[in-house]
Amino acid sequence: MALRVGIIGGGQLARMMIAPAVELGVDVRVLAEQDGMSAGLAASAVGDYRDLDTVLRFARDVDVVTFDHEHVPQDVLRGLVDAGVQVHPGPDALAVAQDKLRMRAALADLGMPQPDWAGVADAAALDDFIAAHGGRAVVKTPRGGYDGKGVRVVDSASDAADWLDALEPGGQLLAEELVDFTRELAQQVARRPSGDLVVYPVVETVQRDGVCAEAIAPAPHAAGRLADVAGDIGEAIAVGLGVTGMLAVELFETSDERLLVNELAMRPHNSGHWTQDGAITSQFEQHLRAVLDLPLGDTALRAPWAVMVNILGGPETDSLSDRLPAALHAHPSAKVHTYGKDPRPGRKVGHVNVAGDELDAVCYEARAAAAFFLD
Amino acid sequence: MALRVGIIGGGQLARMMIAPAVELGVDVRVLAEQDGMSAGLAASAVGDYRDLDTVLRFARDVDVVTFDHEHVPQDVLRGLVDAGVQVHPGPDALAVAQDKLRMRAALADLGMPQPDWAGVADAAALDDFIAAHGGRAVVKTPRGGYDGKGVRVVDSASDAADWLDALEPGGQLLAEELVDFTRELAQQVARRPSGDLVVYPVVETVQRDGVCAEAIAPAPHAAGRLADVAGDIGEAIAVGLGVTGMLAVELFETSDERLLVNELAMRPHNSGHWTQDGAITSQFEQHLRAVLDLPLGDTALRAPWAVMVNILGGPETDSLSDRLPAALHAHPSAKVHTYGKDPRPGRKVGHVNVAGDELDAVCYEARAAAAFFLD
Repeated sequence: MALRVGIIGGGQLARMMIAPAVELGVDVRVLAEQDGMSAGLAASAVGDYRDLDTVLRFARDVDVVTFDHEHVPQDVLRGLVDAGVQVHPGPDALAVAQDKLRMRAALADLGMPQPDWAGVADAAALDDFIAAHGGRAVVKTPRGGYDGKGVRVVDSASDAADWLDALEPGGQLLAEELVDFTRELAQQVARRPSGDLVVYPVVETVQRDGVCAEAIAPAPHAAGRLADVAGDIGEAIAVGLGVTGMLAVELFETSDERLLVNELAMRPHNSGHWTQDGAITSQFEQHLRAVLDLPLGDTALRAPWAVMVNILGGPETDSLSDRLPAALHAHPSAKVHTYGKDPRPGRKVGHVNVAGDELDAVCYEARAAAAFFLD
Repeated sequence: MALRVGIIGGGQLARMMIAPAVELGVDVRVLAEQDGMSAGLAASAVGDYRDLDTVLRFARDVDVVTFDHEHVPQDVLRGLVDAGVQVHPGPDALAVAQDKLRMRAALADLGMPQPDWAGVADAAALDDFIAAHGGRAVVKTPRGGYDGKGVRVVDSASDAADWLDALEPGGQLLAEELVDFTRELAQQVARRPSGDLVVYPVVETVQRDGVCAEAIAPAPHAAGRLADVAGDIGEAIAVGLGVTGMLAVELFETSDERLLVNELAMRPHNSGHWTQDGAITSQFEQHLRAVLDLPLGDTALRAPWAVMVNILGGPETDSLSDRLPAALHAHPSAKVHTYGKDPRPGRKVGHVNVAGDELDAVCYEARAAAAFFLD
């Protein structure tokens, strides 16, 4: 009997689990939001993930339920667990990923290094926070943000007046210190329900307009102490929050060389796409192994360097396939991954991975190949 | 619009094209012989590949038709071409792969090194051939053999009496010199319809009972001249026969250091499964690129050594998934590929790939991991 994993959500993360699932002999089934999504090949159902009956029906034929995104409501997650369904990551862990205020509080409880932060319920509280932090702050809506959405840099509460006005009674925004960072890093770990855990090499990520644009593995100039600390942070969070499956910890490296936790994601993450062609075990295979409570795979790099460059937006008029011939001709060592999504400004529609011996050459190949898919 | 490839045959070779197809954004559709086959996830139709109408209907929605096996009859292949369907490899090339007598004649026309051979229509002719070759010969049925089936070593025509009796009027068996070889090698090349061609590193294969058991890439002690000659043979055959897609050339290395062509396969081949985890471009991705006439990918190794070990037969009572936990626990760097087939003695049900720096260690990991799946 094949192992069966049900994935809620039909986006590119679910899509990229299909390849390792087929090879490992895992039967993946996807509950897609609609027809024609990225993971359509494995879509065994189309329906609303906010509806418990729909999700329970989908879960009936699988051994474990996992996720393409973190938006499944807590009542649905609890309903699954109450019905005896294996859910990884579980509701308690996901609750932390779903709410940034809760995340900050949980990280504080774990003693993790993070930016100064506060929950602010009104303009006075936000202005106090801004005044106490040099006249600027980052304000975030606790729920629903991604890829830079729901995040603003402000120097006055009036810059967030619309969000403050929209708060429900008892609601708060998250105010954070604007960190003076020199670069962003990401640490991935995988953890099984039975407790085993593996750590990936820490990577450097380059964000543009709040969206991940590139990842370089391993992070340059991070050997030794910095990589160890990043790995320790990842492990402490995974264990402390009881994360099962893949966990990505986005980190700031500050100008005074501290690491501060920026965001968490409890699933395969854009910062780990390089693992498909640069690590012995890709994050997508690892996530499947982890949620099935199978032994975890080797996280070592396959080559000294691996670089991932996102295809953001894509060509305005062509499809990605129209651009494949020229890109593949110019870059025979580039691995092009497409998501089956229509190009749209700012949308992630694919990425390119390159692995090799020389960082400069690897970066060039990946960036130049990705550029073929942009206007 | 996604590129669409139709694969005739639902076996493991079709299955292993699914992963690279998803990543590259190629829409693969499979005409499977029955439900529940290895490539079932991509099966868009179930039907008889010997029936032209079935195949034409299947081909209507794809850009190119290719194959999981070489058994599609010539009249069906010609019917596809006549209907304007792109077919790769084409009927003329496949005719050579489908008939071993025709293959020997074609290789002779190309001046390729091969064992002495003759078509024999009766016992007298076969006994003459045996007498002229030291009292032994290999006899093959020209059509339908695979994995050692349809092949016998004989020292008298009486050993092949049943095959001789079954010959149709005008029919012949293939008699070949029993080659004194020290090892077997396999050379893979890929060729696009527009002519571009790439060559993989030549590999050593280990056969047991006529079935491929292991492949070691690159073939040890083959650097330089031997590898060049093998590559030249692969290229000459691909060009000479007009092969499109992947071509595997099985070679004997003789005790006097010649390379002789043993068999041909015009599709991804067991000797190339190592490329999934050991080469920058796997043979399955390469085959898709080639038949779509896309630029071909880099064939370089990702690591100094890559070894593939077949899982032959599998466990007698368990399924492969039951054996996964122990195998993955003991061998975290092993990449396990399963075919979704029920274990049966001698059946290929999966394989294990390992890549790394030290040949001994890589061989050990691959063999030891594969052993977990056998009783």
